[in-house]
Amino acid sequence: MSLLPIQLKHLAGISQLLPKNNPGGPPLQRDEASGLHWFNLYKSSTPAQNSMLPILVDLNGNHLWLNCEQQHLTKLYQAPFCHSTQCIRANTHQCLSCPADRPGCHRNACGLLSTNPITQQTGLGELGQDFLGVYLAQGSQLGPILVIPNFLFSCAPSFLLQKGLPKGTQGVAGFGHGPISLPNQVASHYGLEHQFTMCLGRHSTSQGSVIFGDTAIYMPRIHKQDIFHEVAVTPLTITAQGEYNVRVNSIKVNQHTFSLPTQPEDSGAAGGTMISTAAPHMVLQHSIFEAFTKMFAQQMPKQAQVKPVAPFGLCFNSNMVSKFPNVDLVMDRPNGPVWRISGEELVAHVRPGLTCLAVVNGGMQTRAPVTIGARQLEERVVVFDLARSTLRFSTSTLGSRGLKCGDLVNFVHY
Amino acid sequence: MSLLPIQLKHLAGISQLLPKNNPGGPPLQRDEASGLHWFNLYKSSTPAQNSMLPILVDLNGNHLWLNCEQQHLTKLYQAPFCHSTQCIRANTHQCLSCPADRPGCHRNACGLLSTNPITQQTGLGELGQDFLGVYLAQGSQLGPILVIPNFLFSCAPSFLLQKGLPKGTQGVAGFGHGPISLPNQVASHYGLEHQFTMCLGRHSTSQGSVIFGDTAIYMPRIHKQDIFHEVAVTPLTITAQGEYNVRVNSIKVNQHTFSLPTQPEDSGAAGGTMISTAAPHMVLQHSIFEAFTKMFAQQMPKQAQVKPVAPFGLCFNSNMVSKFPNVDLVMDRPNGPVWRISGEELVAHVRPGLTCLAVVNGGMQTRAPVTIGARQLEERVVVFDLARSTLRFSTSTLGSRGLKCGDLVNFVHY
Repeated sequence: MSLLPIQLKHLAGISQLLPKNNPGGPPLQRDEASGLHWFNLYKSSTPAQNSMLPILVDLNGNHLWLNCEQQHLTKLYQAPFCHSTQCIRANTHQCLSCPADRPGCHRNACGLLSTNPITQQTGLGELGQDFLGVYLAQGSQLGPILVIPNFLFSCAPSFLLQKGLPKGTQGVAGFGHGPISLPNQVASHYGLEHQFTMCLGRHSTSQGSVIFGDTAIYMPRIHKQDIFHEVAVTPLTITAQGEYNVRVNSIKVNQHTFSLPTQPEDSGAAGGTMISTAAPHMVLQHSIFEAFTKMFAQQMPKQAQVKPVAPFGLCFNSNMVSKFPNVDLVMDRPNGPVWRISGEELVAHVRPGLTCLAVVNGGMQTRAPVTIGARQLEERVVVFDLARSTLRFSTSTLGSRGLKCGDLVNFVHY
Repeated sequence: MSLLPIQLKHLAGISQLLPKNNPGGPPLQRDEASGLHWFNLYKSSTPAQNSMLPILVDLNGNHLWLNCEQQHLTKLYQAPFCHSTQCIRANTHQCLSCPADRPGCHRNACGLLSTNPITQQTGLGELGQDFLGVYLAQGSQLGPILVIPNFLFSCAPSFLLQKGLPKGTQGVAGFGHGPISLPNQVASHYGLEHQFTMCLGRHSTSQGSVIFGDTAIYMPRIHKQDIFHEVAVTPLTITAQGEYNVRVNSIKVNQHTFSLPTQPEDSGAAGGTMISTAAPHMVLQHSIFEAFTKMFAQQMPKQAQVKPVAPFGLCFNSNMVSKFPNVDLVMDRPNGPVWRISGEELVAHVRPGLTCLAVVNGGMQTRAPVTIGARQLEERVVVFDLARSTLRFSTSTLGSRGLKCGDLVNFVHY
């Protein structure tokens, strides 16, 4: 660290965002068609041509999986043997035996179950170990690449890539809490704090990014504002299925509040609310969906409401609507920190004149009563702190303060 | 790293043993009475007086546990809450609730099962998080201390300390492969390689040590010899119970070989041979013990054999013995690397005139057919490489080359 905290009060200009040993992290892109987010891995075999592998961001995934058949691996690729320390680290005692000797297929290797987070399909792949390269600059094959040697991941069956993912996706990166998730392997390798910051970009002018390790020790002041200003904290828990959870105490639509049913403290859905980059829109369990939709509709001019268009349950004639209500998620406890979602963030402009409430009815059997989707994460700073088990989040969008995720990218210093 | 490998051929003198960011590790001591090994943690509450906590080295343990009742903790001690990321990292979903609010007892904490590796007793403790301090210099309260913030460990019930451990022991440190073992938390914090080197000292003149991360990139040349010279490698596996395993293919006594029964590849005792710092002597399953003892006896003058004294099964009149046979463990495969154990290392001098084969008959039901004990690890360099799943070991003792573990301590540079 190069500056003493006694200087913090003197910092009035641009400061170093990241400590010396922190490589930052990849810029993220948003796929227009699906609303999902992805980044480029470096494909090592033929460097000069077409060396970028698009990989989907899966917040709750516990490992990175790839289709290895397309020669994406270096000559250093190995499949750790059954009962090896690497397999146990990846939490697998399952031995695989496959007659050929190519990536994804070896005798005496370990099996790892991978999931397509959109379709929920699973497939058994081979645990592999190789160099991982992640592009740190966007839009170019040139420039710095973050490299982790001995990175553990799965060579998954190619059918897993076929449905649900943006066109051209070659794999899925898990940002979950597990020992071989992408953030945990990066943090271990660099001796970083076990946390990561995510800022998902909404517009083509605003690039998203993930930053590994601790970020804002010194806060960058852009246009005299501080991108990490107005960040609140709430406890983070992990469900029995390994997903991130937070607790939403109640939901307010304008001033009208309704409480969420409390979760027993030791239930599987620990906090009660999931967060997912694989769900573009917020998902509510059926009864919560009904209550919320009704409350939202009551805040809108009755005459603006029109027949809903699938998959949405509440739609409006946009010409007759001037403003949508704000929706506040009150986190953790009755007067806890507020995750303010502007009405604009909760609607989808289906076609000219038709705007719908972009919240999905998950049915009776959802993984969690509430799932915060990618859309609600966009244009916010969200920090998953796995050392302290907290989530820090922008209370309102960066846009409401004249900033955007793209501003953060410009300041990924080291 | 400060020296290019092109200089390796020029290195003829003392070189840097450890890279810049590697803090080394604690010196170890041997308890005469029990043959067990321990080191000092730093006790943070009253620094000036009596600030050292003796902690037993448990190679296969998966976490560090302490008796927290004696105010060993700092004011920063926390018990991570149930379902927190820290609890999941420690692999525990078990919630504990305890009415008081003191270390070891909190509401909404997590439970972790700790084991006394000598008595095999277990006890449920509370998962705690605090600063860990490890003394890096021996015999003094002065000098550098390795500190890990946010270290995860267990506040275990005090009864676990009462039996089997050297007098004054305040806890047990697990050096196992699991995510919150001491080596893994140190490696993660410093961004080191996931490996550690252990050299257990045998004599009061030879101090032992553990060095975290990678060690001998540049090998110190002491008295023109290289302490890491003559090191062989064998695969390392983890059993279903989380213990380190290697495979001993056969045992040779002088030139006489007998093979060990092969393990099916996917059995629980993966490699077949355990390694333990909690067992002072080698332990053999009953039938292997019988065969080995017979083979050993055949190499000794028949008239030297005397009535055995418990717990040993084969004893000799030492006045009638000039030399004990060498015992070679042939590792991994029929002509694999050899772990040479001199006869001297396998005997115990019970009293003047009486020397016994210090190998224990584990009975019919042992955890593994062969357990390599602390005595066989002493005065050797042993490297547990958890990134590559290998064990590197000195093929013969350092003493056979005029060196000792104490020489390594003098060269813990950084």
